[in-house]
Amino acid sequence: MVCLSGGMDSAVTAAMAALSHDLALLHANYGQRTESRELSSFEALADHFGIAAGRRLVVDFTSLRQIGGSSLTDPSIAVRHGEPEEGVVPTSYVPFRNAHLLAASTSWAEVIGAAAIFVGAVEADSSGYPDCRPAFFHAFAEAIRLGTRADTRISIETPVISMSKAEIIQRGLALSVPFELTWSCYEANKEACGACESCRLRLAAFEKAGARDPIRYRAND
Amino acid sequence: MVCLSGGMDSAVTAAMAALSHDLALLHANYGQRTESRELSSFEALADHFGIAAGRRLVVDFTSLRQIGGSSLTDPSIAVRHGEPEEGVVPTSYVPFRNAHLLAASTSWAEVIGAAAIFVGAVEADSSGYPDCRPAFFHAFAEAIRLGTRADTRISIETPVISMSKAEIIQRGLALSVPFELTWSCYEANKEACGACESCRLRLAAFEKAGARDPIRYRAND
Repeated sequence: MVCLSGGMDSAVTAAMAALSHDLALLHANYGQRTESRELSSFEALADHFGIAAGRRLVVDFTSLRQIGGSSLTDPSIAVRHGEPEEGVVPTSYVPFRNAHLLAASTSWAEVIGAAAIFVGAVEADSSGYPDCRPAFFHAFAEAIRLGTRADTRISIETPVISMSKAEIIQRGLALSVPFELTWSCYEANKEACGACESCRLRLAAFEKAGARDPIRYRAND
Repeated sequence: MVCLSGGMDSAVTAAMAALSHDLALLHANYGQRTESRELSSFEALADHFGIAAGRRLVVDFTSLRQIGGSSLTDPSIAVRHGEPEEGVVPTSYVPFRNAHLLAASTSWAEVIGAAAIFVGAVEADSSGYPDCRPAFFHAFAEAIRLGTRADTRISIETPVISMSKAEIIQRGLALSVPFELTWSCYEANKEACGACESCRLRLAAFEKAGARDPIRYRAND
């Protein structure tokens, strides 16, 4: 079971998981600005990996939209442009989002009998979200062990968590990940803005990896 | 912040929390059979506690309905009648439901600045759900500490977790909890069935507490 947002980290994570597992793919809609584009990326990537409809699940986190508190889910909070600041939790942090993702993943994994949940979280070279740290995933794995049936065994796998974004791109290129199908921009749905924190991280990483980002950017026009 | 299902355990928990806190109340709709009745109970109890509209949140766990795997959310799985079996996780177990509840509670608590999440989980004298055990809540509290902002401090409080159902009723009577507004039945929305596991536990507990259950049962007619 892979949590596949449609971004490049989770796409590479799915390609790594596919080396040794039959995949099921979960995508979360939590009312983020770019959900329509992320959902298209999810479906296109699921087609790429040859996943049947019954092994794809799009879950709706209406509660995160209701709760707000993030520039990604609350239209009144602006999406920040530029590089992320060191040591500061950015306004794009969706409070405790990954716990919602892991809760839904665990429920689904327990029902379909999946042995592992793959999450494309990245700690270093990333945005400083507290729920992307290895210690958080370890604590949540313990909550899964204690909060599910005695015979349920579900591990959390975060294969890219300590890679740099450039390393993730290189690994993805080696695994023929179709980066043209992925989406990272926090703000735009058609052509990536090139200016938000997520676009900046992506563009810098492609440059560092010595590769060309195949998606279209507004600034390119 | 109190998770208030509308059942008697969470109603008593709310009354206990109200002794030392200003309350905010969260109710979860996860597609359970009796949600319409539980929601009325939630609103009536919120009125009883004098909670303003902005401090009530009804969250929608569409994902749990989509995922199914429980007699409470999947109409094709029958609700079991009679006493719970010792050592068996009942079919009414909604896989990892309390993790969804705690994830939403934590997100909301982080946004509104609540210091504690009160949950009316009961371990002993209950249904054998793995996500109602103290060890699960301890592990989840650690996940909250590690997965939220550095300055966020949110504890999980489970004041009735080691009480018997009869003790919970006695405590509730001492705190003038309006049990006539609560709902426990898993199956019916109008008059409680008196036969499902949850009704059986409730009826036995009122008898043990030497009190009269003020709600109407089908069998009484």
